[in-house]
Amino acid sequence: MTELPLATRATDLVGSVIDSSTSLLASQQHDIVRFAMGSPAPEAVPADTLRQIAQVELGRPDAYDYAATEGDPRLRDAVLGLLDDTPDRTSPERLLITAGGMQGLDLAFKLFVDPGDLVVVESPTYTNGSATALSYQAELLEVPVDDDGMQVDTLEEMVTRAGRTPKAIYAIPTFQNPSGASMSVQRRERLLELTREWGSVLIDDDPYGLLRFEGDDVPSLHALADGDPLVFSVRTFSKIVGPGLRVGWVDADPSLQQLLINAKQAMDTCTNLPLQRLVAGFLEGGHLQGHLDVQRAAYHERKRAMQDALTEHFAGLARWTDPEGGFFLWVTFETGVDTEALFETALAEGVAYIPGNAFSPSKRFPDALRLCFASSTPERIQEGVARLRRAVDSIRQR
Amino acid sequence: MTELPLATRATDLVGSVIDSSTSLLASQQHDIVRFAMGSPAPEAVPADTLRQIAQVELGRPDAYDYAATEGDPRLRDAVLGLLDDTPDRTSPERLLITAGGMQGLDLAFKLFVDPGDLVVVESPTYTNGSATALSYQAELLEVPVDDDGMQVDTLEEMVTRAGRTPKAIYAIPTFQNPSGASMSVQRRERLLELTREWGSVLIDDDPYGLLRFEGDDVPSLHALADGDPLVFSVRTFSKIVGPGLRVGWVDADPSLQQLLINAKQAMDTCTNLPLQRLVAGFLEGGHLQGHLDVQRAAYHERKRAMQDALTEHFAGLARWTDPEGGFFLWVTFETGVDTEALFETALAEGVAYIPGNAFSPSKRFPDALRLCFASSTPERIQEGVARLRRAVDSIRQR
Repeated sequence: MTELPLATRATDLVGSVIDSSTSLLASQQHDIVRFAMGSPAPEAVPADTLRQIAQVELGRPDAYDYAATEGDPRLRDAVLGLLDDTPDRTSPERLLITAGGMQGLDLAFKLFVDPGDLVVVESPTYTNGSATALSYQAELLEVPVDDDGMQVDTLEEMVTRAGRTPKAIYAIPTFQNPSGASMSVQRRERLLELTREWGSVLIDDDPYGLLRFEGDDVPSLHALADGDPLVFSVRTFSKIVGPGLRVGWVDADPSLQQLLINAKQAMDTCTNLPLQRLVAGFLEGGHLQGHLDVQRAAYHERKRAMQDALTEHFAGLARWTDPEGGFFLWVTFETGVDTEALFETALAEGVAYIPGNAFSPSKRFPDALRLCFASSTPERIQEGVARLRRAVDSIRQR
Repeated sequence: MTELPLATRATDLVGSVIDSSTSLLASQQHDIVRFAMGSPAPEAVPADTLRQIAQVELGRPDAYDYAATEGDPRLRDAVLGLLDDTPDRTSPERLLITAGGMQGLDLAFKLFVDPGDLVVVESPTYTNGSATALSYQAELLEVPVDDDGMQVDTLEEMVTRAGRTPKAIYAIPTFQNPSGASMSVQRRERLLELTREWGSVLIDDDPYGLLRFEGDDVPSLHALADGDPLVFSVRTFSKIVGPGLRVGWVDADPSLQQLLINAKQAMDTCTNLPLQRLVAGFLEGGHLQGHLDVQRAAYHERKRAMQDALTEHFAGLARWTDPEGGFFLWVTFETGVDTEALFETALAEGVAYIPGNAFSPSKRFPDALRLCFASSTPERIQEGVARLRRAVDSIRQR
């Protein structure tokens, strides 16, 4: 067989547990409660409204042409308008429309990370986020997360021990994926101080910030940074409208705009235009706020349902986080359950989740798992957690 | 001002002349004949049909969820079906749906190119293709194109002179962008031999192959390669349906499938799902063949109109290529016109094109330009070429 002349970095491309489980899920014929993917509830997707908007927008031939690389003017205006009365107000020269939040991360690591550079990630962290840093051959420093988010004191100690400062710090400060934890405002401020001291780029990935259903607002890193060029903010419509759209944006220093355009042209030329117009129409029509209200209420109810079910089925066996928004709960078994080994049994019982090790490049969470409470109704959540307990009992009896 | 800690490769991100001209175009209020972008004619975009399909597909909540990274099963099946009765027949394990052809190029260079690796490109070549190779810090070898496509003999001499073999060869064999030239079957076969001799990856980028309007079919590199793992084929719906969709595919060795999935997950997670479904619906509905027939007839007429207008206005002043398909003509002035300097004057006269130097990293074509005949009606083409002549006269009188 011909040997393909792969680049060195190809060996650093890590597979995602999420993907293999998706394929497995797709191949299963029987009923499965889906706690795995970070998708909005199907009934929370405003498909009817979007279809009506599509009826206008997708009938225009110019919707199928190339978009400007920085984004369609209508969507750019709509995003600026969305942020205008918030602490995250921004300006056109900071804005680039992207193919979801993921491309914002790809752009950030492409612009800032040379092979061997130190990049801080949270532990646990978003699988594809750390995977992208690795694909640019970063060396990762995994900093623990607790109920107040990234342990910034520990970060400082770890950087001192490493003997060199990080090129970039990758944080998901609000309703973190996968833990559900939010970074306290004190830690956010301290993180910004360290960023400035070190001259690192702070990649502020905040897909869930608009999905708070309880507790008090915490200012975003973007808002606290007040235009600091070191803060590179990544945002998306994936969680608040639909991930399949692949529409998000980057909010970054104006000095980066032309570089971002150049880098994005070499990735995908531009973001798909019909769905930029669809999202623009959704925002222009004033649909987002009501939609967010409905989602927040639903996700609040679902989180409580999941907490109740966990208490019923896993009290004493595991502990779990208590997020004030977003999609995810993080469950850690007290009793040494191997969640990768558990996965197939759980699927056979009819419940899917993501094993903890998917969220750590060095696989630090063999006894944890991520549950998405957003995608299932309270009744299904109750059923899914009961099935998870049966799966755990089944492997513990072996 | 804070110094941003950019990666080394950030200095290799080249801006595209196409983009700045697009912005310039967008800012112009007056009537402009648009020969610049490589877009299908607005009247050739099947917007009505797509809108009707959207009315069904975009009303389904599951269309807004994540797609499988390798692509939505319906679109994958439809693409396999499209190729089934052709010499480009392929199989599921070779197929990955991408965000247009551009992402196929990003994937290829990401998987195969280490910094300093030699990459062959045609000269002239597609701007964003060479830009992507440069963004992975390739060293480029620019091989001249003539009426029979890449000069493969010259390639062999240049590689001998370089004293090392290329890691990858980037070719647009059919109705090349920007020249419109097609590589002869003899050259295709010789290029495949050299590829095997050198163990290089042959990136076979063929966006226009289905748009032949005269002359005889030439087998694609994919078809000639007959499953050779070294051939990496990049395809797209951009030119045959609409570039704004950002839907294309890669057809590559099955041993690359998992790496491609991993790499794509770290780029954009998956390709947008609603427009994958839209394209699937278009193909399933049997709309493509009739649509291609209409397009081919229109582009044939438009090419002739452009050739006639060039003969009328530029005989003796310039020479131009005679493509048998695709979108582009390549015009070279015999009399030393600087086409970058000409650009603003041409815009003021009401005609846009892309200067030749945009298609060469080392700017070898100061006296050439690319004209897209696909986007304008014959009447507008006649008008645009007349305006171009006025612009040339205007700068020559200075």
